[in-house]
Amino acid sequence: MSKSNDYNERSLIIHEQLRGKIGIFNKLNITSRDDLSIAYTPGVAYPCEVIAKDASRARDLTLKHNSVAVVSDGSAVLGLGNIGPHAAIPVMEGKAMLFKQFANIDAWPLCLDTQDVEEIILTIRRIAPVFGGINLEDFSAPRCFEIEARLQDLGIPVFHDDQHGTAIVLLAALMNASKILGRDLAEMRVVLNGAGAAGTAIARLLRCVGHDPNVCVPVSDIVVCDTKGAIHRGRDDLNPSKRELLGYTNRQNRTGSLLEVLEGADVFIGVSKGNLLGPETIRKMATDPIILAMANPIPEIMPDVAREAGAAIVGTGRSDFPNQVNNVLAFPGIFRGALDAGATAITEKMKIAAARALADAVIDPGPELILPDPLDASVAPRVADAVARAWREEHPSR
Amino acid sequence: MSKSNDYNERSLIIHEQLRGKIGIFNKLNITSRDDLSIAYTPGVAYPCEVIAKDASRARDLTLKHNSVAVVSDGSAVLGLGNIGPHAAIPVMEGKAMLFKQFANIDAWPLCLDTQDVEEIILTIRRIAPVFGGINLEDFSAPRCFEIEARLQDLGIPVFHDDQHGTAIVLLAALMNASKILGRDLAEMRVVLNGAGAAGTAIARLLRCVGHDPNVCVPVSDIVVCDTKGAIHRGRDDLNPSKRELLGYTNRQNRTGSLLEVLEGADVFIGVSKGNLLGPETIRKMATDPIILAMANPIPEIMPDVAREAGAAIVGTGRSDFPNQVNNVLAFPGIFRGALDAGATAITEKMKIAAARALADAVIDPGPELILPDPLDASVAPRVADAVARAWREEHPSR
Repeated sequence: MSKSNDYNERSLIIHEQLRGKIGIFNKLNITSRDDLSIAYTPGVAYPCEVIAKDASRARDLTLKHNSVAVVSDGSAVLGLGNIGPHAAIPVMEGKAMLFKQFANIDAWPLCLDTQDVEEIILTIRRIAPVFGGINLEDFSAPRCFEIEARLQDLGIPVFHDDQHGTAIVLLAALMNASKILGRDLAEMRVVLNGAGAAGTAIARLLRCVGHDPNVCVPVSDIVVCDTKGAIHRGRDDLNPSKRELLGYTNRQNRTGSLLEVLEGADVFIGVSKGNLLGPETIRKMATDPIILAMANPIPEIMPDVAREAGAAIVGTGRSDFPNQVNNVLAFPGIFRGALDAGATAITEKMKIAAARALADAVIDPGPELILPDPLDASVAPRVADAVARAWREEHPSR
Repeated sequence: MSKSNDYNERSLIIHEQLRGKIGIFNKLNITSRDDLSIAYTPGVAYPCEVIAKDASRARDLTLKHNSVAVVSDGSAVLGLGNIGPHAAIPVMEGKAMLFKQFANIDAWPLCLDTQDVEEIILTIRRIAPVFGGINLEDFSAPRCFEIEARLQDLGIPVFHDDQHGTAIVLLAALMNASKILGRDLAEMRVVLNGAGAAGTAIARLLRCVGHDPNVCVPVSDIVVCDTKGAIHRGRDDLNPSKRELLGYTNRQNRTGSLLEVLEGADVFIGVSKGNLLGPETIRKMATDPIILAMANPIPEIMPDVAREAGAAIVGTGRSDFPNQVNNVLAFPGIFRGALDAGATAITEKMKIAAARALADAVIDPGPELILPDPLDASVAPRVADAVARAWREEHPSR
């Protein structure tokens, strides 16, 4: 194909042809009055009555046990910013496709015509009955933190994928990268650039990186930077979520710019923007540093530049380089496992179990193979098993 | 099958086996990185940008043009009453199946965890962007009137099927019944028992029953009854929707019980409850009366009793008697036509066009054949054509 990289035009044409990338199918054909009487009236009244007596029976008798709402307000879509609910639909449909393809989950996109936090929370509460889980998508930070936190009492998993999906895949990448280099992840000095949705979730998840899944050993030295440099205790311009980060990051209270704090660091994690780092910065890091430069579409530093300057292992968000950190490795299996276990939340242990399962899915890790292929159909079932097991271990009585 | 009428147990078993009567399918398999780049990132960004510039393009590029939300709050489900949102799911899934089977519409059930009118209206407004239409279902009266009326500015059709679906099929039945009897529907004396959602909608629709679709000729003599008898101007116990009915019903201001006002009437329409009428009441009606006794599962009078007492034509809501007045004859074609025409509402002319198309779909009407078979696949396309044409005639500039 002569224009094989011209994704834009080709994507537009496909979207025009399909007019919807997903559709509904009936599990039963209605071809007789008898079918109609069983699937609809009068027979349908009986399963309704059974659920009316015990709402938990909805999981046995309806689509609830396998359905996920992919919910967005269109406020932070891909790198496009606040494009609103209608323009967000193609992304949410794409997400629903990935749920189906990799985890056989029936996901339906819901793009909300409001960007008010209270209205978003109330709307999600009200539409919850038919869903077994809620995948929050492309809500801008810091609103996304409050929305997710306040919905944790909903009785079904509510999971902001831009935060935790990215963090889980990133942790898996770091697990394999440190294994390849024969180093202890908890002992590495990490600099994380970007304190938005993904950056905050990564910093939180790096509080549990030890070898024993039941004991939380944190990365002991991690500094998070925003556009003004290191987030440290001397700054008076921090919003609540950045201030909270100081509870478990920057114990040495390092100050200075991103480039300054990167001197001597073992790991750079970028969830920020393209072309931030040059080779000289990599050279000032510790020997054989790990670079996970996930800005899209242009990474914080291009892989070849980083490798030439001494980086031992480089990952990006791009599919045309090795070591793609791609959310699709995580969210289908995570929701599959949570639905299978009847989980009411995605706990920290489930996230770490997912990261371990992802890391272990790479049979023979190497500098250019720290993560599974995003299209490997065996990954989601492995992640699902680990996630369901983690929930059941935490909730043995259920 | 020995227990062929035991729909309840069989329905429960089927619901347990299927665990969801509908599911999602992908219109595109994602088997290569190229597929992923087209359906999801990075390619999906371009259709998003196109819609961001012009939200109306969502109909060309997403599922919006073919998707309908089947929304209920579970407050008046079938004959079961207020069973809540979880217990309503099997009905809404069944409705979604019928949308797919008869009109190839992708309908998704949404059962709302609120019964507050303001919250319901706001929730539907907020979830509207991904849908091309809203089918309201099983909301109790009189709340259903306000919910539907206040959502008419949403820019997509919002249609309460319990009201208008029933009214449209009923009008079609009356059109054919009067044709068979050689009488003018507008000249008949009609008594309608039941002033809830369906009854009110029927009374409204019977304001336009003449032969010329562009001129509204009403049924000139129609009396609506509630449990206290005829709704007349002397009553001081009427809620606003019943009071509104007096604007176009009971011009003679008849008073008395249902049985009293039925004396000499040509048509009985029942949307009330079972076993209300005996043969003596039918005998006191005009010669060769039309009886449409739609209470479910027990009609206001059983068809054999009504026929023996002199009824010329009898219809019910049941599939085991001739002349079943069943909503499924109307709503799939109505939404199909509205979506095809890009309609922003279901107007009175579209409803009447649907009723005419339904009546005309019966090639050779007879006393036991006043409506098409609910499983006749040719009906919805005929209704859809008529409904789309009616919208386009009303909105020629679009």
